[in-house]
Amino acid sequence: MASAEIITVGTELLLGQLVDTNTTFIAKTLADAGIDVHRETSVGDNTERIAAAIAEALGRADAVVVAGGLGPTVDDLTREAAARATGRSQELHEPSLARIRTMFDRLGRPMADNNRRQAMMPAGAFVLDNELGTAPGFIIEEGTRAVIAVPGVPREMRAMISGQVVPWLVKRFDVTATIVTRVLNTIGLGESDLDQRIADLFHAGVNPSIAVLAHFGQVDVKLTAKAHSHDEAVAMLDELEPRIRERLPDCIYAIDGGPIEQVVGELLRIRGWTLATAESCTGGRIASMLTSVAGASDYYLGGVVSYANEAKLDFLDVAPELIERYGAVSEEVATAMAVGAQAHLRASCAIAVTGIAGPGGGSEEKPVGLVYVALAGPDATAQVRKLMLPGDREMIQRRAAMAALTMLWKAVR
Amino acid sequence: MASAEIITVGTELLLGQLVDTNTTFIAKTLADAGIDVHRETSVGDNTERIAAAIAEALGRADAVVVAGGLGPTVDDLTREAAARATGRSQELHEPSLARIRTMFDRLGRPMADNNRRQAMMPAGAFVLDNELGTAPGFIIEEGTRAVIAVPGVPREMRAMISGQVVPWLVKRFDVTATIVTRVLNTIGLGESDLDQRIADLFHAGVNPSIAVLAHFGQVDVKLTAKAHSHDEAVAMLDELEPRIRERLPDCIYAIDGGPIEQVVGELLRIRGWTLATAESCTGGRIASMLTSVAGASDYYLGGVVSYANEAKLDFLDVAPELIERYGAVSEEVATAMAVGAQAHLRASCAIAVTGIAGPGGGSEEKPVGLVYVALAGPDATAQVRKLMLPGDREMIQRRAAMAALTMLWKAVR
Repeated sequence: MASAEIITVGTELLLGQLVDTNTTFIAKTLADAGIDVHRETSVGDNTERIAAAIAEALGRADAVVVAGGLGPTVDDLTREAAARATGRSQELHEPSLARIRTMFDRLGRPMADNNRRQAMMPAGAFVLDNELGTAPGFIIEEGTRAVIAVPGVPREMRAMISGQVVPWLVKRFDVTATIVTRVLNTIGLGESDLDQRIADLFHAGVNPSIAVLAHFGQVDVKLTAKAHSHDEAVAMLDELEPRIRERLPDCIYAIDGGPIEQVVGELLRIRGWTLATAESCTGGRIASMLTSVAGASDYYLGGVVSYANEAKLDFLDVAPELIERYGAVSEEVATAMAVGAQAHLRASCAIAVTGIAGPGGGSEEKPVGLVYVALAGPDATAQVRKLMLPGDREMIQRRAAMAALTMLWKAVR
Repeated sequence: MASAEIITVGTELLLGQLVDTNTTFIAKTLADAGIDVHRETSVGDNTERIAAAIAEALGRADAVVVAGGLGPTVDDLTREAAARATGRSQELHEPSLARIRTMFDRLGRPMADNNRRQAMMPAGAFVLDNELGTAPGFIIEEGTRAVIAVPGVPREMRAMISGQVVPWLVKRFDVTATIVTRVLNTIGLGESDLDQRIADLFHAGVNPSIAVLAHFGQVDVKLTAKAHSHDEAVAMLDELEPRIRERLPDCIYAIDGGPIEQVVGELLRIRGWTLATAESCTGGRIASMLTSVAGASDYYLGGVVSYANEAKLDFLDVAPELIERYGAVSEEVATAMAVGAQAHLRASCAIAVTGIAGPGGGSEEKPVGLVYVALAGPDATAQVRKLMLPGDREMIQRRAAMAALTMLWKAVR
């Protein structure tokens, strides 16, 4: 079994200014690929200390993965330290320099001189392209061992680890255990609620393993099977999946799917429906989620952030009497907002949210956390749901957005 | 200056199943007390590897703080490893055993046999009481150096570090330094661009130190002064700050401030201005940022996500001829969107964004990354800016939103 160590670089880690989630991601990704991590180290922006940490780790592990210190500044010292730890010089990597220059050209800005540093690579290194930023990564092979450097910017690091580093390691170290994962994407249940429904299926060390992962208001159930062949692992998952499904009726919106906004978008596209939004307390969060998906313009027409009452009247034709009689946070206004957005944009359907996200603005009758979500569907149908959401402002906004998207998913699936 | 290393123990860390926030807390607490952390290490539940990590760290640092591995199970190996690393035997610590027994008595449960393990201490260790759980910590002095072990349960660890370990270290190593930090929040410059402007002010080991921290499209410049008194540290920062300010004209929007959306909101409130938004390619991201701030309803009236052209016509009264002649992504349409949003909501000002976030929808003439941001200000003034933004869809949306907020900040400050 191949062994690895992880080194993260950055003085901010030693000052406790930053939680080191890069190490967690890399460790998890390597473990999933069947590579054992034996030690994790963080060092500051200091060439000697980084070089010492790399050299020590190379004495113990097959692969040393270093994250961070590839930026353009004088504090970015991983290139130099890796060269020093492996007794190499640095040399300019022309294709990387050209790539960085192109990125700046597109910005219409001159390339700073110090960005040239990012194209300096330890001699003989295999360069890893960075599609998302200026810092290329690299791999240095030292006999049977390897030093691998990736950027510290989380999204650049993640793309490079999953897309290039792990495939390289699996091939280079001939990792043979096959690991197949399957993610059941759920919506509408809290993490502990979901956990409780399936807890008796978990046992430590059991294969396939079950993990419950919560993120941004959605909860994923991740099944991981280890076997000697892909088919064997898939058969194990096929046996387990229905046992979980029967515990979670009406909650699983996709298998290995993306976030709910992507899956709902795909369903809208398939149905040929168009969508509009009207948001009060979620303040554009739903629109922002929907438009984070490439190609959203195929089904999403747009919407209104009706934060002030004037916006509800002007953009959505909500009758002022309705607001006067029932208040802006009411079933009636939520429904009128959805109907107004649908009519203005001639959309197949519209979702609307009005509520009190807090911390101010609550009253005894209408406390912080009171939210109405409404859906105006095809054929002049409308539905509305009242929610009392716990949490702070951000949690309430997030949960309200999720509730609206859940309502939409149930209508369009 | 006293130096320290931190070691966290637990196989779950190496599997990436747990984010190591213990290290972050300990590092921050030590830094605040004026103790330099030089390295952080995580190892699994393996006596030999824990002992090796402790022995290595003792060779480099004055104090080695080990968190985790003090529980009652056979997997809890820090006591044994610390004894081995310092060439000691273990002995039963009667007061700790009595304390653990009392805790179980109070719970009305019999003490498990393996809880006895928790009272075994390296010979000659100074025992740290645990008020919150069964695992005592300990300090072993080795000549001028020390190994300190604390539990891995976060609340027990935190209480022991703050209440017992730091006071002991400060006294033992005669730490007298005070640390004061000041953060200059900037917008409008990239990380490397900003770095280049101030790079000559940095030198390794210089006090005050300067760190450039990028996050979500904003860049912070963090100044950290160490001195013998608070006043002295503040004076050092007061001397440095203007030298940085003159290098970054028009970029620093706050000192120790929050994100730009919060600072801009505060400025709008002070001026008594109201704001509207009109977003095409940012799809509600700006509205969502603005409304993430509590109390945003005091100045933010609302806006439109005009994703489809119909939304630009219907909600914002953009003239169809304008779209026909110049295209939806144009200076003219961006300006008309801002003016339309401002007029509809009778807002003091409005910002608008239209562009091509990609990956589809680009052309040779109007490529992915082309974005116009516009501002309609008081007194019927309007301005518009053309940008060519690099990156993927998410980056383009984020940068476009930041550019619009920067334009607004310059108008309202």
